[in-house]
Amino acid sequence: MPRQAVRTERADATREVILATAERLFAEHGVFAVSNRQVSEAAGQGNNAAVGYHFGTKTDLVRAIVHRHDEHVEQLRTQMLADVGDSRDVREWVACLVRPSTEHIAELGSPTWYARFIAQCMTDPGLRRIIVEETLSSETLRAIRDGLGRCLADLPEDVREERADMSRQLMVHMTAERERALAEGTHTPRASWYEAGTGLIDAIVAIWQAPVSGAAASLSG
Amino acid sequence: MPRQAVRTERADATREVILATAERLFAEHGVFAVSNRQVSEAAGQGNNAAVGYHFGTKTDLVRAIVHRHDEHVEQLRTQMLADVGDSRDVREWVACLVRPSTEHIAELGSPTWYARFIAQCMTDPGLRRIIVEETLSSETLRAIRDGLGRCLADLPEDVREERADMSRQLMVHMTAERERALAEGTHTPRASWYEAGTGLIDAIVAIWQAPVSGAAASLSG
Repeated sequence: MPRQAVRTERADATREVILATAERLFAEHGVFAVSNRQVSEAAGQGNNAAVGYHFGTKTDLVRAIVHRHDEHVEQLRTQMLADVGDSRDVREWVACLVRPSTEHIAELGSPTWYARFIAQCMTDPGLRRIIVEETLSSETLRAIRDGLGRCLADLPEDVREERADMSRQLMVHMTAERERALAEGTHTPRASWYEAGTGLIDAIVAIWQAPVSGAAASLSG
Repeated sequence: MPRQAVRTERADATREVILATAERLFAEHGVFAVSNRQVSEAAGQGNNAAVGYHFGTKTDLVRAIVHRHDEHVEQLRTQMLADVGDSRDVREWVACLVRPSTEHIAELGSPTWYARFIAQCMTDPGLRRIIVEETLSSETLRAIRDGLGRCLADLPEDVREERADMSRQLMVHMTAERERALAEGTHTPRASWYEAGTGLIDAIVAIWQAPVSGAAASLSG
């Protein structure tokens, strides 16, 4: 291998180790409780500035962790969407939303840290924008929203927006909750990520199909 | 007023200012991004160690903020529960879960910071335990869970646990989402906290009443 290629390969390996270490420390101690210096040290980097050298700021590091996972989730979702076509079945669209995430986590093996990491980012005033940019603006998620919109054409636009939010919040935070329970060895309501996905699909389908109370009043008001 | 009483009153006022300042800074910048020193300064305390003097650690400060709000939410919930009695109507119990929180935030006036603060705490590995201890172990929440259990006696215990989690996640994170949108002046799906509460009740009732897929399989497995 030419010397340049060896150097690149070594840098890639270092980046991978830093990403995995950062994700674990962030999930276990909090994204803001852990410094770039601590990540560099725990990743076995002699140079305490390794995170800065390979990624830049904490924000850049967070973005890289998200990107690393999201590529695979997007792949799985694209495959599922190809089978759904222009279905009018709410459950099929909701499955496209939920299964790629739970399947991705299941494939990571055990233990995982990503779900707790993402949940923290979603509630942090500074990091939230990164998640929105990296994941929520994806083409596949837009396709699912459009698909659900065609299934539920009578739903007022604002309620659709609200229920899309609810679906996202449930997915992110229930997944983190389950990951935390697995890490702490406490009881989980479902035996596998697949079954946890089924529970989420049941709930999210029900939300989308729920009657809208006071809809007439708020539309005329 | 005797000198001791004046001193106590002044200390109480200082504590109140610190609590309000901390809550705002935490919501806007992140609980871990803001130091006790910054809170003391922003609260107009000449002494940069004022937070330490009046509250102790950051954890103690977080606990005090939660406690300050939760007392009122508990009061509202106790009143609502008195009217529900031993109802078999899922919606009445879910209303007891949702309305006290949204009403409390509505009564705080505008803007508020509490919902974003709580959402951060719920996803932080260190702070989560505080919220669980201060709020989720309340007697009124147990009464609501028992009430829902009587309405939905056929639901497997694990699914009940899962749906109680889902209800809590939706409440915490949808409320934070709405508060953030109001603070940033972006669009919100509902015109008032009351209506946002109605949307949450519609969704949470639907979750509790949703059919359980694969229940037979998982019970026999």
